Amino acid sequence: MNAIGVDVGGTKIAAGVVTPEGEILDEVRYPTPHSPRKLVENIARAIMEVGEGHEAGGVCLGVPGLILARENKVAYSPNLHAVEGIPLKDELEPKIKLPLTIENDGNAAAWGEFRFGVGSEADHLVFVTLGTGIGGGVVSHGVLMRGAQGSGGELGHVTIHATGPRCACGNHGCLEALASGTAVGRRARELAVENPDSALGRLASRRQVLGEDVTDLARQGDEAALSVLEETGRWLGIGLAGFVNIFNPEVVAVGGGVMEAGDLILDAARKEVLLRARPPSRDLAEVKVATLGARSGVLGAAALARDEPSGEYLLDG
Amino acid sequence: MNAIGVDVGGTKIAAGVVTPEGEILDEVRYPTPHSPRKLVENIARAIMEVGEGHEAGGVCLGVPGLILARENKVAYSPNLHAVEGIPLKDELEPKIKLPLTIENDGNAAAWGEFRFGVGSEADHLVFVTLGTGIGGGVVSHGVLMRGAQGSGGELGHVTIHATGPRCACGNHGCLEALASGTAVGRRARELAVENPDSALGRLASRRQVLGEDVTDLARQGDEAALSVLEETGRWLGIGLAGFVNIFNPEVVAVGGGVMEAGDLILDAARKEVLLRARPPSRDLAEVKVATLGARSGVLGAAALARDEPSGEYLLDG
Repeated sequence: MNAIGVDVGGTKIAAGVVTPEGEILDEVRYPTPHSPRKLVENIARAIMEVGEGHEAGGVCLGVPGLILARENKVAYSPNLHAVEGIPLKDELEPKIKLPLTIENDGNAAAWGEFRFGVGSEADHLVFVTLGTGIGGGVVSHGVLMRGAQGSGGELGHVTIHATGPRCACGNHGCLEALASGTAVGRRARELAVENPDSALGRLASRRQVLGEDVTDLARQGDEAALSVLEETGRWLGIGLAGFVNIFNPEVVAVGGGVMEAGDLILDAARKEVLLRARPPSRDLAEVKVATLGARSGVLGAAALARDEPSGEYLLDG
Repeated sequence: MNAIGVDVGGTKIAAGVVTPEGEILDEVRYPTPHSPRKLVENIARAIMEVGEGHEAGGVCLGVPGLILARENKVAYSPNLHAVEGIPLKDELEPKIKLPLTIENDGNAAAWGEFRFGVGSEADHLVFVTLGTGIGGGVVSHGVLMRGAQGSGGELGHVTIHATGPRCACGNHGCLEALASGTAVGRRARELAVENPDSALGRLASRRQVLGEDVTDLARQGDEAALSVLEETGRWLGIGLAGFVNIFNPEVVAVGGGVMEAGDLILDAARKEVLLRARPPSRDLAEVKVATLGARSGVLGAAALARDEPSGEYLLDG
């Protein structure tokens, strides 16, 4: 049976009807409103519009933030406050007339990569997504690792350098503070100042440098831009090495907008994993770019709606 | 059916016959020899001696080091080189006439605490053991998290301070380098030098300070000794906070010899978890002293021999 996956992002809501084989039959996008009432409205509209003319067995929403799965609501969402505390299931199900569950967006995307993407051959997958922040999800022994409340898989907020820069979460030295898109930006500004004659420095003197600028300049061989990405990759690798030791996965997949830079970041990360992770885990784990891109959230959420239709997984513990 | 659990340590081999309810009916101890041949001999002897007069369905060995579960052997064991690479299953089964599996000692102890100890009410348990090194194991959704090869749950070698002190594994800033018994000893020596008039400083001028000395002096109120434990607790807490964010467990249990110090270490660790872990995971996770003490390894290994009698868990992936 087809299912509907919804990726609720900070700027847009994407909903798709997905087959059991992972084909997206139809997709719609709506903007993400800032008021809770309008947010619920747009989610409902996206689901109903995309579902028209298709049979679908259920819906899962991938939502940024820390999930209380048993209550089907979002406890905290630093990047989407409108969604906090809303009884999403109770409000949406009467409108859409389909069973609905919610999932953390990183977990949903991890499940997408596990079912249909870079992890489809693996039983153990660590998935990290590098955007403004860092999200992630883990599949271990074929099971999505949600933890007791559904808030597990929060990979961006592990401390990898206790005295490191301040993170959006308030702490110091989280993986997110050192390897996210925000960290790339901060590092680019610093290196632009230190290297005013580099292409990076010259661009920064004219306008604000964006993440994609750093990647472009690095591709053109600018040493300062290359350093920004390499240093980001080293920090990423320090985090990934820990995950390799913890999870002993076959695949470590990295996605998100920052991965436009691909191996310009991942090569340095792989070196650090070889240095810091331990055999045999170190030698097994392949650090790869995730393959589904922005579709991982919709695909994973739809697969979760099908694989675990009513969220009962948490109720029989 | 009863089962035999064996805890193969750096200095002694403990074997016990354990009931399904977690009662140890009989127990023997043998020294750990340094030659591979004698090591296999003593393990066999311990199993046969303890099993005499009991019916038992199988045996599991908890062994320090990184396990290749499919091959039932230990790939690397920094603290017990004699065990590396031996085909333990093939060598032992003909002698003991019982099916045998092997498991990392931290994973076995985690399973013991999950089945019979501090985690017996939980579905998600993070277990960390503070000894000379740091071992651990994780139970997630009721499943022991072994990873693809059986080397998962290596919690001591996650980087929490990238520029931190050198670890036994060769890297810098691992949790083990900052919160193990070895780290307590290093910190005690440093603080003894900085505080020659403290009780710790005076003791250090007469003889080598041991871990238990630090705990004793801290109990007597010596500020230097208290600082040693508090700082250890803070580093421990930085690691535990990451595990709380990753696993969203109900219980985080800390065991091992260093836990003689109990809340003198754990109070500081709990503070750091409150600071660094995120709600709702932060508010759920209870950081507790493990309750089974040194018996967790034997109990957990025996339970694993029963719960997963032939290691098939890894073969159907």
